[in-house]
Amino acid sequence: MKFKKKIILASSSPRRYNLLNQIGVDFEIQPSEIEEIFDPSKSPIENAVFLSEAKAQQVAGNIDNGFVVGADTIVVLNGELMGKPGSERDAFQMLRKLSNKEHKVITGFTIIDKPSNKKVSDYELTLVKFREIEDEEIMEYITTQSPIDKAGAYGIQDDFGAIFVEKINGCFYNVVGFPLTKFYLTLKKFQKEI
Amino acid sequence: MKFKKKIILASSSPRRYNLLNQIGVDFEIQPSEIEEIFDPSKSPIENAVFLSEAKAQQVAGNIDNGFVVGADTIVVLNGELMGKPGSERDAFQMLRKLSNKEHKVITGFTIIDKPSNKKVSDYELTLVKFREIEDEEIMEYITTQSPIDKAGAYGIQDDFGAIFVEKINGCFYNVVGFPLTKFYLTLKKFQKEI
Repeated sequence: MKFKKKIILASSSPRRYNLLNQIGVDFEIQPSEIEEIFDPSKSPIENAVFLSEAKAQQVAGNIDNGFVVGADTIVVLNGELMGKPGSERDAFQMLRKLSNKEHKVITGFTIIDKPSNKKVSDYELTLVKFREIEDEEIMEYITTQSPIDKAGAYGIQDDFGAIFVEKINGCFYNVVGFPLTKFYLTLKKFQKEI
Repeated sequence: MKFKKKIILASSSPRRYNLLNQIGVDFEIQPSEIEEIFDPSKSPIENAVFLSEAKAQQVAGNIDNGFVVGADTIVVLNGELMGKPGSERDAFQMLRKLSNKEHKVITGFTIIDKPSNKKVSDYELTLVKFREIEDEEIMEYITTQSPIDKAGAYGIQDDFGAIFVEKINGCFYNVVGFPLTKFYLTLKKFQKEI
């Protein structure tokens, strides 16, 4: 995949690097230092888009030329927002709540063009249904330490994460952390318009 | 993931190796030499399950002890079965047909226990919706040679494959070529019963 300018990814998520690598995009990494704090007066989608924009804006301040990309993924179960678990105990509680239920995974993303400062934001929403999972499986998964840095305390590309998920409805790569198809189409259109 | 016996995978698909590796399963590979020929008097699901059993049976003849696993993935568009494309031209036609439409991905799988010869078969079905794709994108994808060894002429884990898919409904890993969750649950139950 070739775009008109280099992409600067304002993210420290290895899943996002892997996904951009997968579609062969030329990019470099400059993680933002934005804290992921939710605003309860906003909807989950608004929170995800707002945080993605804040991350992109912060990094865009240091960039002369390129497309700066921010993204934020959140998990929503019955209206409750789940970010990254703060502890193993949090991770356990989150996974227990997700068992045998359907939740939403929302990724907001923002692309800022430098030097013009033009920008575009969008989001992707995927429904994910967990099978009933046992406490023992959750404990075993937590010992791998993998849940700690992931919204909702799981990675669908992990060993256990993969077999917790019964089915999804929507974009798969959004659940990994970055909605490849929507991002590709959005950037293709954006670079024609700027 | 630990099972009671070693798994012998009767498949030459690198996607299947990667998926079994992903869930940390102890396995070895012994590809079968079964030709993938569809029987038009059977339904797509029956074809996929039948071929998975034929593959497992052939390899099971050489195995003294273990779980022999066969699998077969097919793509079905409006009742038309799509296996692996025979040529670049076939691949082009298949991808053009899939553009802007929803198709089914069906994986049949069979597990045979050796030495008891007890067996179990099941399948997974996932709906996949392609966005509208351009001839140019198809051509570019075909030059990577990736479509040639894949049912329906695409891999959802490929560079272009990933961005052709708008959304899926069902098990993601089934689309890659092996339904991890259903396989895991089926084998867990099977090894208790044998």
